Amino acid sequence: MIKNRYSWLDTPRLICGVMTGTSLDGIDCALVKFYKNNDSVIQFEIIDWELTEFNVTTKNTVKQIIQEPVPISLISDINVLLSHLYADSINCLLKKVQMPLSKLDAIGIHGQTVWHNPNGKDLFGHKIASTYQIGSISTLAAILNVPVIGDFRSNDIAVGGQGAPLVPIFDYSFLASNEYDTIALNIGGIANLTYIPRQCKKNDVISFDTGVGNIFIDLAANDLFDKPYDENGLFAIEGKLIYDLFDKLKKINFIYYKPPKSTGRELFNKELYNDLLKDIKDIYPPNDIIHTFTYYTAWSIAYNIRKFCNPTSRIIVSGGGALNSFLISLLKKNLPEALIIKSDDLGIPSKAKEAICFAYLACLRILEIPANITSVTGASRECILGVLALP
Amino acid sequence: MIKNRYSWLDTPRLICGVMTGTSLDGIDCALVKFYKNNDSVIQFEIIDWELTEFNVTTKNTVKQIIQEPVPISLISDINVLLSHLYADSINCLLKKVQMPLSKLDAIGIHGQTVWHNPNGKDLFGHKIASTYQIGSISTLAAILNVPVIGDFRSNDIAVGGQGAPLVPIFDYSFLASNEYDTIALNIGGIANLTYIPRQCKKNDVISFDTGVGNIFIDLAANDLFDKPYDENGLFAIEGKLIYDLFDKLKKINFIYYKPPKSTGRELFNKELYNDLLKDIKDIYPPNDIIHTFTYYTAWSIAYNIRKFCNPTSRIIVSGGGALNSFLISLLKKNLPEALIIKSDDLGIPSKAKEAICFAYLACLRILEIPANITSVTGASRECILGVLALP
Repeated sequence: MIKNRYSWLDTPRLICGVMTGTSLDGIDCALVKFYKNNDSVIQFEIIDWELTEFNVTTKNTVKQIIQEPVPISLISDINVLLSHLYADSINCLLKKVQMPLSKLDAIGIHGQTVWHNPNGKDLFGHKIASTYQIGSISTLAAILNVPVIGDFRSNDIAVGGQGAPLVPIFDYSFLASNEYDTIALNIGGIANLTYIPRQCKKNDVISFDTGVGNIFIDLAANDLFDKPYDENGLFAIEGKLIYDLFDKLKKINFIYYKPPKSTGRELFNKELYNDLLKDIKDIYPPNDIIHTFTYYTAWSIAYNIRKFCNPTSRIIVSGGGALNSFLISLLKKNLPEALIIKSDDLGIPSKAKEAICFAYLACLRILEIPANITSVTGASRECILGVLALP
Repeated sequence: MIKNRYSWLDTPRLICGVMTGTSLDGIDCALVKFYKNNDSVIQFEIIDWELTEFNVTTKNTVKQIIQEPVPISLISDINVLLSHLYADSINCLLKKVQMPLSKLDAIGIHGQTVWHNPNGKDLFGHKIASTYQIGSISTLAAILNVPVIGDFRSNDIAVGGQGAPLVPIFDYSFLASNEYDTIALNIGGIANLTYIPRQCKKNDVISFDTGVGNIFIDLAANDLFDKPYDENGLFAIEGKLIYDLFDKLKKINFIYYKPPKSTGRELFNKELYNDLLKDIKDIYPPNDIIHTFTYYTAWSIAYNIRKFCNPTSRIIVSGGGALNSFLISLLKKNLPEALIIKSDDLGIPSKAKEAICFAYLACLRILEIPANITSVTGASRECILGVLALP
């Protein structure tokens, strides 16, 4: 466990973590209290959390920045606008818990990723790998009068890492166990996991994407049932397995790759979905289709756990997929020896986990404790992640 | 004078200041030692400095980012590339003075300004004022393994300031005098000054642009003599005043505005130059033309000093214009009561002053001392400027 090197945590500290993910659904804010226990080990307590949706104009403008050439003035202005929106969300959350802004000790922001290319390319004779999150750190610190930390990924990339994932340090610090091998499984659009063998050292931790998470299920819910997602898996549970489709899905090679590995919407996307359903969509009932996608998702996660981790682990599930109880039941069938629980059962709301993690990363920056796990990101050395703006 | 609040300066510290100005001429690096004297007042000693020119490709790519819509990937990559170039320049300077990188305590980077609009505009219902400097702070800290501070302007703007000028805190800290009213005059493309009345408080300091600096002289040197600038004023000294042209120049209203005021290439540019020379260029000898521009520059600076400051001040001149001895002699004629010296005479190389200033701003950030002068920037409060990345 991580020992506190400095005295900042001698008093409990309140830190707000702010996450804005690539799905552009909005701003996740989590208010977290950090303190040291009697053994000087950092502990946390979640005060509350909240998701504020982006309005359509903001969402579209960020999309525009990601997808097409734009004038630098727009990037500069949206960089500052996002900080105003973060400030609004933070104020909203504080109001909800009736806490004055003056009690807030720090804020950790992920920022909005608009570019991420950790593998790099040659540019004017230099090998350049870069990641870019917008949301002005200095601006937020100035308008709220609170220290703000952000830009957590750049220095890991600068020393040869992928700049991701950053959540494993949180999993290692707070979910590791001496009794169980532990897997922190996050089922978002993509599914990824952190594997923490019992009593392991920090650099024995591994973390990788297992493959698809909710992407196919959400696409099918949208396409076949006109819903954004399959609530509790109620559409899928009514169907049965389509062997043809499952066989096609099993041909996606990513699942069998050895970690470290990562994937994204460049592979698991609408094109692949349409391609898979060619000659199938008109023959089988919608419930069978979404059933098969759900079945495949659980199977592919289980395959990776069985092959690259330990199928008797304690598995702590977070992300939107944790709320799909049919998916979780299939996972349990595929991994009967595992102890599968939701992160909510440990007091960590599935959907707030990343925001909580960025509050923790902010805490580590202030304590000047490195937060990248080199066995996970591939960086050549540990770094103190994040830049710190003072008011 | 500024007192050190923390113990960081109990040992002398070496800080590298890195300036990349809007003229895109290259990277100015200054290596500066900061220490406290017996009264705990911060002092500095310049070890050495160096200018590395940008190569044409880098220069053109930065220009492209400023002038036209570009994909975010380019901005992200140039952001990192600049840090590699800064690292090369710093390494070069350290090698020159035979100092190992491990001796360097911190780096302060201005970054390359690609957008600056402190007055703001309405964006999706928020009043957004923004400034944008590229050059990744985290990346530089990681590749050199040294703490790096940058993004000095954003929080001043976030609290209603212009985010500029930032040099006055340096002038106030190191050039103020109990005996003289002091003017720190910088003659770059534009001429600006910091006026520090004797024994004044920090918020009595004023700072403003007086008008054109070297822009017209450089344009004439280029246009009429095919030189980048008029070395020592040798072309101008051979000419005589063209009253017609001087009368036209005196009609530029900016000179008469009351401070605070700032200007730039949006007013003093090639279009205005061409416009001024219509019906003149073919009639008068080139030396008379460049003479008149030099005369006007000195006159307009002197006018502002006489009108808004004190013509009996000690004037410390820096910037490229300090090296034009004919310009300085005209300034002396216009302000016979003043004591005019070059910053070089005080041990501050004219061309390195801004880089030295950013080393000082980095020092202030580490000591957590506010560096914006609210009477100068117009900010509603003092801020601790700059974000800090640790290796």
